[in-house]
Amino acid sequence: MTLLRGNAVVGQSGGPTTAINATLAGVISGALKCEAIDKIYGMKNGVDGFLREDIICLNDYFTDGAAFESLKRTPAAALGSCRRKLPVESDPKYSETFEKLVALFEKYGIRYFFYIGGNDSMDTVAKLSKYTQEVGYEMRIVGVPKTIDNDLLGTDHTPGFGSAAKYISVTMQEMLRDTAVYTVPAVTVVEIMGRDAGWLTASSALGRVLGMPAPDLIYLPERAFDMDNFFADVREALKNKPNVVVAVSEGLQFADGRYVGEGTQGGAVDAFGHKYLAGTGKALELAVKAEIGCKVRSVELNLPQRCAAHIASLCDIEESFGVGEAAAFAAEQGVSREMMVILRDCEKNESYSSVYGHMDIDLIANKTKYVPKHYINERGNNVTDECLSYILPLIEGECYPEYKNGLPVFFAF
Amino acid sequence: MTLLRGNAVVGQSGGPTTAINATLAGVISGALKCEAIDKIYGMKNGVDGFLREDIICLNDYFTDGAAFESLKRTPAAALGSCRRKLPVESDPKYSETFEKLVALFEKYGIRYFFYIGGNDSMDTVAKLSKYTQEVGYEMRIVGVPKTIDNDLLGTDHTPGFGSAAKYISVTMQEMLRDTAVYTVPAVTVVEIMGRDAGWLTASSALGRVLGMPAPDLIYLPERAFDMDNFFADVREALKNKPNVVVAVSEGLQFADGRYVGEGTQGGAVDAFGHKYLAGTGKALELAVKAEIGCKVRSVELNLPQRCAAHIASLCDIEESFGVGEAAAFAAEQGVSREMMVILRDCEKNESYSSVYGHMDIDLIANKTKYVPKHYINERGNNVTDECLSYILPLIEGECYPEYKNGLPVFFAF
Repeated sequence: MTLLRGNAVVGQSGGPTTAINATLAGVISGALKCEAIDKIYGMKNGVDGFLREDIICLNDYFTDGAAFESLKRTPAAALGSCRRKLPVESDPKYSETFEKLVALFEKYGIRYFFYIGGNDSMDTVAKLSKYTQEVGYEMRIVGVPKTIDNDLLGTDHTPGFGSAAKYISVTMQEMLRDTAVYTVPAVTVVEIMGRDAGWLTASSALGRVLGMPAPDLIYLPERAFDMDNFFADVREALKNKPNVVVAVSEGLQFADGRYVGEGTQGGAVDAFGHKYLAGTGKALELAVKAEIGCKVRSVELNLPQRCAAHIASLCDIEESFGVGEAAAFAAEQGVSREMMVILRDCEKNESYSSVYGHMDIDLIANKTKYVPKHYINERGNNVTDECLSYILPLIEGECYPEYKNGLPVFFAF
Repeated sequence: MTLLRGNAVVGQSGGPTTAINATLAGVISGALKCEAIDKIYGMKNGVDGFLREDIICLNDYFTDGAAFESLKRTPAAALGSCRRKLPVESDPKYSETFEKLVALFEKYGIRYFFYIGGNDSMDTVAKLSKYTQEVGYEMRIVGVPKTIDNDLLGTDHTPGFGSAAKYISVTMQEMLRDTAVYTVPAVTVVEIMGRDAGWLTASSALGRVLGMPAPDLIYLPERAFDMDNFFADVREALKNKPNVVVAVSEGLQFADGRYVGEGTQGGAVDAFGHKYLAGTGKALELAVKAEIGCKVRSVELNLPQRCAAHIASLCDIEESFGVGEAAAFAAEQGVSREMMVILRDCEKNESYSSVYGHMDIDLIANKTKYVPKHYINERGNNVTDECLSYILPLIEGECYPEYKNGLPVFFAF
């Protein structure tokens, strides 16, 4: 095989996670080990910054292992992020945008393009792959997934999910103790991220398979939400214990498609047309207060779910780094227009292990992986042990940042 | 000195914290070391459970150091809590309640009463002290403070405050990275607990004195909140950077005494007549959206502030344990009707150290320690370095729970 010699560029895109910098560290580490790759550039704020030539040379920052360890333990996107969707062919800006991108690739001698992001970012990888192929600019373009939502197809799970699931399940263990101290009947509704997929909400119950406390009721967006069934479930739970804890997905919808939280928020959408979801917990708090009349509070776990680096999953951080390194090696080997995936190694039954692979981007982009039917109980108010057994190994191990005077020391370019 | 020989009882009361079990562990450890104390009973759910004779013998649970270590690292009140206020003399239930309490002390041979709680729990200590003295039942009654709010007089700071401040300041470091990834102007309003005192909100800025990021604007309830000044502050901050982070206290009030969050919540009050506060962040989010029109989100840090044992402050956990032990020793020495306090040892300038003392309960109960004037800047939109220097040593060190399969293992009776 002839090596495609040249420089590389890497960017981060979409919502930040606790692990997206571990993947960045992995891509840089891998690229530095690749014989074919000379310089590795970082684009600030994704393709947005790249188009403005806002790029830095990363080789200078990573002269020893300490910088990699620090970046791995730093939350959010150290290079910055963007939500730019590249234009489609019918868009008047199409030619101008892609011609500029290729001109910049030529200017900086870039033959490798790594893009770390979610579903929407894979769209960038697909479009760029198609264009460069059409104009005959030889290039390797590889996507590396990240999303706390775990809703990408093709990969056993997504980098970033394990750390979010760990934050949620650890915090749930703590809140279950906190809410249990009084004897007065009370309901606590905990709203969890994940958009239209229930993976993160399911993870709130992980304690159950370890003989620890767990929420009494769990509602995922994969099942239509029924308010009457919900009230009946809560009433039943209150018969057995005074303190009932309910975990709900932000994306809960009624059978007619309306979001449960829609009433308490405007109809705002983001740049990709996704509805802005929030307020599901608050809506259910008000509903329980009005219907059942007991003490009730809602807790929206909010931003810490995607940035709590102080309790990251070691499994997640190591895999996020590993899949980033693997992306660089794969690209050097000729892989392009593919997204990196993590595959669970099923042959070793006794303990969890994983391997890295890659998959045609067109099979993956703009699709959603939902929690399957058999992971949800019949009544639709909890998850099965099989579901929890799937998630449990992904929160294994604790990855702590370095502390100075009581506060975490994070990496910054 | 003649020893007052007998049994002891300990209870927890009021809102749970991350450190209240460390104090419980300290009281038990201290009582076990006291020659005068034989059995140490635990009351379930405070005086509520004690009046129902819902008590357990704690000696059986603490036969080695491992149980103490586990309890120290467990959040919330392991014995359960209550919000019962003992009746005043004019109350028809007065005689009945106190006679029953003394009858139970006699039945179980109890001569030592330790009550771990906040301001309202010190009221229980005061009333019980007065009554037992009047009826001539010889007893030592000592209160041990706990509150994340740090609003008790007489003590340099309260057990539980350091861990809450650590959770808030660590999470703020993470959220400051998370909110900084995009280049689109955006405001994030973070609502922090503390009732009418701004100590916890102030702690969100700790990074500043360490050269780390910090919120751009900070509003404490000690200053009347002015919406026009707030809008002007936000507009000014947006001129310098796209991502503005604002930390606000849940207890912010306008000059006329109305709570800023009042509009978004009912007028509910708790058993002690405290207004139930929530919604300050949401109210300001809506105000910024309407007035300035940029992207805006609010984050209510909520329950994890008082139960995030996974990132407890080592300083706080050690002191919370230490002041609990000191309470037992003080009682054996004859101290009664007093609340334990932590005093900062100012003679050693080079590094922080503290000693334990005690103070007449009447000087302390039902009073509030506010953030002093010189800890807040002139404009009223930030805290001074002096304020942060006071808080900083209290978040020093990380106290982690033990983990099993990725989840924390907590103590349970």
